[in-house]
Amino acid sequence: MEQLRGACIIGQSGGPTSVINASAYGVIRTALDNPNITAVYGAAHGIKGVLGDKLYDMGKEDAKELELLLNTPSSELGSCRYKIADPDVDDTDYKRILEIFKKYDVRYFFYNGGNGIYLESNKISKYMQKVGYECRIMGVPKTIDNDLFGTDHCPGFASAAKYIATSCAEVYKDARVYDTGMVTVIEIMGRHAGWLAGAAALAGVVGCAPDLVYLPEVDFDMDKFLADVDAIYKKNGNCIVAVSEGIHYADGTFVSEAKTSATDGFGHAQLGGLAALLANIIKERTGSKVRGIELSLLQRCGAHVASRTDIDESFLAGKTAVEAAVAGETDKMVGFECTREGGKYTSKTKLFNLSEVANFEKKVPLEWINAEGNGVTQAFIDYALPLIQGDAKAPTEHSLPRFARLKKVLTNP
Amino acid sequence: MEQLRGACIIGQSGGPTSVINASAYGVIRTALDNPNITAVYGAAHGIKGVLGDKLYDMGKEDAKELELLLNTPSSELGSCRYKIADPDVDDTDYKRILEIFKKYDVRYFFYNGGNGIYLESNKISKYMQKVGYECRIMGVPKTIDNDLFGTDHCPGFASAAKYIATSCAEVYKDARVYDTGMVTVIEIMGRHAGWLAGAAALAGVVGCAPDLVYLPEVDFDMDKFLADVDAIYKKNGNCIVAVSEGIHYADGTFVSEAKTSATDGFGHAQLGGLAALLANIIKERTGSKVRGIELSLLQRCGAHVASRTDIDESFLAGKTAVEAAVAGETDKMVGFECTREGGKYTSKTKLFNLSEVANFEKKVPLEWINAEGNGVTQAFIDYALPLIQGDAKAPTEHSLPRFARLKKVLTNP
Repeated sequence: MEQLRGACIIGQSGGPTSVINASAYGVIRTALDNPNITAVYGAAHGIKGVLGDKLYDMGKEDAKELELLLNTPSSELGSCRYKIADPDVDDTDYKRILEIFKKYDVRYFFYNGGNGIYLESNKISKYMQKVGYECRIMGVPKTIDNDLFGTDHCPGFASAAKYIATSCAEVYKDARVYDTGMVTVIEIMGRHAGWLAGAAALAGVVGCAPDLVYLPEVDFDMDKFLADVDAIYKKNGNCIVAVSEGIHYADGTFVSEAKTSATDGFGHAQLGGLAALLANIIKERTGSKVRGIELSLLQRCGAHVASRTDIDESFLAGKTAVEAAVAGETDKMVGFECTREGGKYTSKTKLFNLSEVANFEKKVPLEWINAEGNGVTQAFIDYALPLIQGDAKAPTEHSLPRFARLKKVLTNP
Repeated sequence: MEQLRGACIIGQSGGPTSVINASAYGVIRTALDNPNITAVYGAAHGIKGVLGDKLYDMGKEDAKELELLLNTPSSELGSCRYKIADPDVDDTDYKRILEIFKKYDVRYFFYNGGNGIYLESNKISKYMQKVGYECRIMGVPKTIDNDLFGTDHCPGFASAAKYIATSCAEVYKDARVYDTGMVTVIEIMGRHAGWLAGAAALAGVVGCAPDLVYLPEVDFDMDKFLADVDAIYKKNGNCIVAVSEGIHYADGTFVSEAKTSATDGFGHAQLGGLAALLANIIKERTGSKVRGIELSLLQRCGAHVASRTDIDESFLAGKTAVEAAVAGETDKMVGFECTREGGKYTSKTKLFNLSEVANFEKKVPLEWINAEGNGVTQAFIDYALPLIQGDAKAPTEHSLPRFARLKKVLTNP
């Protein structure tokens, strides 16, 4: 493979995670150190930064600050939800990208994001091939949802899972402090896949499992749910429920959006989200004391309790993307191939074709969900537990998180 | 002072904290090691355990498990909200307490709780004096609300404050990831005192301060609030607001309970709490994207990110209570006297009379709140920052919290 010299751009896209910046750092550090890469640019807000010629010169950053990206949550370069058009319909954006690539002699583009970016990256790559501009394009995955095709798991999932399991363990202690019982409903992210809701069950490893866990892979039945809760509450005087935000009835309607008469009597959509809605329904039907807790953004930005395994693998994904691209690869996403035989976890990177990854959603296998549809099996625990191992060792200042403080020097101010 | 030999009881009361068990451990460990204390009993669910003769024999616990109480959130012995009557009106409970004290030769009673317990402890003490039963009674404080009279601060506050500041710093990163702006409202505990809401401002020490902070010490004005938010949103394209759950209008009505027409058009109380309510009002009035986050129980049970200073001081409060009682003290609460001159924090224990502590609520001084009533001053930061210092060093198992697992052997099964 011929050596390709030129600059690189890294962009970030979609919802942030605790470790997406660890991947970005993997790209940036490796690219800065690579003799074939002449300059490293960070696109402000993903592809929008490319289109708008808003590129940060990463070479002007302090090396120590860059390293702090390992423990800095959210997308430090800024994210976007902008979707470029199909090039056959409208190639305006593609022409502009080409213009910017030429302006800065960009020969490598690393896109750090979730499901949305793979098709997009693939389209850009195909356009560049069509117009004869040599450029290698790689996907660096992130998503707390863990729903990417092919890879064993996604960078970002494990840290969110660890936050969720830790919080569930702590709430377990808090929720049974009084001798008057309580039903606690914990709402967890994951619109279409139940990986994160299932992670609540990891708290069982330290004896603090939620009693019931509902995933969106299984249709939700309100009567069955209330009977489940009631049975446990009657037996234990207490019940902790973990629910995915994406639970839905058999007809596909999200429970969070369903206008049930049990909500406020007028069928108004609830502001407070699913946890509050379910807690209220339980209260009305069973009379028990209730508490709804929504883990909200905290689960995707709780970097102080991130998984070391996740941080290390996220960095490795970024590093591997650069090394593979320089070695001649293009149109690939870096994923992981893992084994867990005999409780021993091994992980190595593996390249997947962008076109294969795009537009698939990997859900929790049904055989990892119990027959009652209200919990996960040991197979799920065995899968997820190795991923959350290790201390984040996040740097602090005055005992508070010390995040990276980048200068973000624009090439075109 | 004559030596008093006999058993001791420790009870816990009120809402739990991340470090109340560190105080209980301070009592239990010190009492188990003290030759004058013949047995150490933990009352199940506070005074209700005494009344119901439900006492755990702490001498039967494994020493290592007991030590894990330092990092175990919530009230491990169980809490209660039971209020005993005034002895002049109804002395049934007092007779029963005396009966139990005599049965187990209890000469020391340590009550680990918040505002509610001091008057109660004092009444029990007076009753025992009246009937001529020698018994020393000490209050061991806890409350995330930090509203106890006399003491510089309360065990439990700092760890909740650290959780809040850490979470606010992380949300700060997450909330500005898109170039399309967002207003984020973070709801923080503290019904009558704004110490915890003020703690959100500690995130400013690492450059991640919320833009606006509203405390219940200042009357809330919705129009002023919306103007504040709008001004910042227009200037920065983004706004993070921290609000105490206890903010109220000038007439005393809690904002969370007020039925404004801006809520759902029908004046229904919102299920989702204050954050969702304010977020919705902001959305309706300004059209901005909004997100409401309620830190909920997590802020009082987030032991994995507890303050080491808080853990150490909480333990010390329990230890000091036992040592002082054995030395002859009674009817006292253990508090702290601190200095912060030149940025150097020193702390020592100090005893306060139970009768003085009872029924006062210490609020944030008005001079620590800015003139606009939407933030705290540097004096607040200087006060609170030393308290959150130091790593919790919480033990883990499979990278999840390893809490104490007590046998809880009842003396009267």
